[in-house]
Amino acid sequence: MGQKIAVIGLGSMGYGIAQSCLRAGHKVFGADVRAEAVERFQSEGGQSGALADHLGNIDTAVLVVLNAQQTEAVLFGEDGIAPKMKAGALVVGCATVPPACATHLAQRCGELGLHYLDAPISGGSIKAAAGQLGIMASGTPGAFDAAEPMLTACAETVFRLGDSAGMGSAMKAVNQLLAGVHIATMAEAMNFGLSQGIAPGTFLEVISKCAGSSWMLENRAPHIVAGDYTPHSQVNIWPKDLGIVGEIAQASGVETPIAETALAQYRRAVDMGLGHEDDAAVIKVYAKAAGLVLPGEDA
Amino acid sequence: MGQKIAVIGLGSMGYGIAQSCLRAGHKVFGADVRAEAVERFQSEGGQSGALADHLGNIDTAVLVVLNAQQTEAVLFGEDGIAPKMKAGALVVGCATVPPACATHLAQRCGELGLHYLDAPISGGSIKAAAGQLGIMASGTPGAFDAAEPMLTACAETVFRLGDSAGMGSAMKAVNQLLAGVHIATMAEAMNFGLSQGIAPGTFLEVISKCAGSSWMLENRAPHIVAGDYTPHSQVNIWPKDLGIVGEIAQASGVETPIAETALAQYRRAVDMGLGHEDDAAVIKVYAKAAGLVLPGEDA
Repeated sequence: MGQKIAVIGLGSMGYGIAQSCLRAGHKVFGADVRAEAVERFQSEGGQSGALADHLGNIDTAVLVVLNAQQTEAVLFGEDGIAPKMKAGALVVGCATVPPACATHLAQRCGELGLHYLDAPISGGSIKAAAGQLGIMASGTPGAFDAAEPMLTACAETVFRLGDSAGMGSAMKAVNQLLAGVHIATMAEAMNFGLSQGIAPGTFLEVISKCAGSSWMLENRAPHIVAGDYTPHSQVNIWPKDLGIVGEIAQASGVETPIAETALAQYRRAVDMGLGHEDDAAVIKVYAKAAGLVLPGEDA
Repeated sequence: MGQKIAVIGLGSMGYGIAQSCLRAGHKVFGADVRAEAVERFQSEGGQSGALADHLGNIDTAVLVVLNAQQTEAVLFGEDGIAPKMKAGALVVGCATVPPACATHLAQRCGELGLHYLDAPISGGSIKAAAGQLGIMASGTPGAFDAAEPMLTACAETVFRLGDSAGMGSAMKAVNQLLAGVHIATMAEAMNFGLSQGIAPGTFLEVISKCAGSSWMLENRAPHIVAGDYTPHSQVNIWPKDLGIVGEIAQASGVETPIAETALAQYRRAVDMGLGHEDDAAVIKVYAKAAGLVLPGEDA
């Protein structure tokens, strides 16, 4: 029997999650500050009407918003949804947040009789739409039981990382440290190669088959080769996520000098006005400093 | 018909290249400063006797030594082999060297009537032994023709990067920038995760399936999980290879801040006495600074 699932945040990841839940036979309410996203989702089979009218009946609320502040506001802010949900319902937090924030949200949900699954996601918008995400999850056995329908609909792989919220977010921070550094390093290496006469297309062809390759290199380098910075994932993500890494590292007395250096490059990209471009655009920081011309640019 | 091939430098990569040439039916002379490596190779089918007596007859000399200085010394130093080789013979340079060095060596070989193939290698000792290396090659069409038997014996993939020496070494520098950063970032992220209660084995299991993965992470993280720092590739490689990257970058007016930060971590590892351990041991720099205990260490 299908569930009633609300997906809050219909961005590139949330929209795919909502579609995957629909395809699995659930009744899905899509919510977003952008009315056009909500209308588009309703036209594709989503439930109509205001989410507020149905909050007391939904089984699962999946939060796919930008950060910790938005997650907290959706749940407990003015018009927060948590106090209106029925006891035993489930909140799934997918945003990248500090582990301590996930722990705190789980505790406040628990006080209202709600389950909370700390469930950051990995895989990108195409995998989200295909129901093939990797989900780094932690929470009580009850939260995992309640999440079974949503996880089955959306995930190719569910990593069960522990019995309490926080471990999922910790693993996501680890993944973001690597992913953020790998994108910036791909840009650094491609620009370095360009200065030696190696065309971006040749770089991609050779390095993707060599020991210098990474998941992110294979995924993002083609954007630079094509000169196409349509934002599948924005530069703006990285000052946020590598900022979270830095906060955790500082609080834990751990050094992360490489992540800090990559963070500085993303901040330079934001300062250049590239925040809303695809994150591969961090290469423009390097190319501008070196006076090099990238594919798609005028010489 | 088999060739006469000399392989100079029977380390983990050179030994595998020599074995692969033997398996392909060539007569192979192995040379190394370590007599035991030479004897072992002779016992496995290599030619006996002193290389010096055969230099006038060999078709191809493959140099798999540590760096530019050693490559130059083998070719043109006291007792250098280049002046004793026959006209039309081939020198294959496999060490990671600055592109300008490869250009210079090719020119000096050309003056002696020798072909020179700029041919840095990628893939590790297991692929070297299996004849499945990736070779980033550049040189004249004549050099490529002369190298056909050796390349067929040793390479799974030959990247033809241009008609003159230097481009192969430039691509290798690009690869080493990425590979060196990826190993250090893997260590940084694993140590960061450890501080949050994520065991190295869990890190490897999850991240190798997520967007934060890299070729080097999948290859080196298992060493840390096993607490086994047997040097498949030494820490000492990275101050050298990232140093070459830095020299090229400076000469070309290109910024490489992430590579510089990784280089600093490897230098700290060398200062801790870890130079001859496997390069995954760079994690000990991080763990020591944070007071964390790695697998295989006493708490």
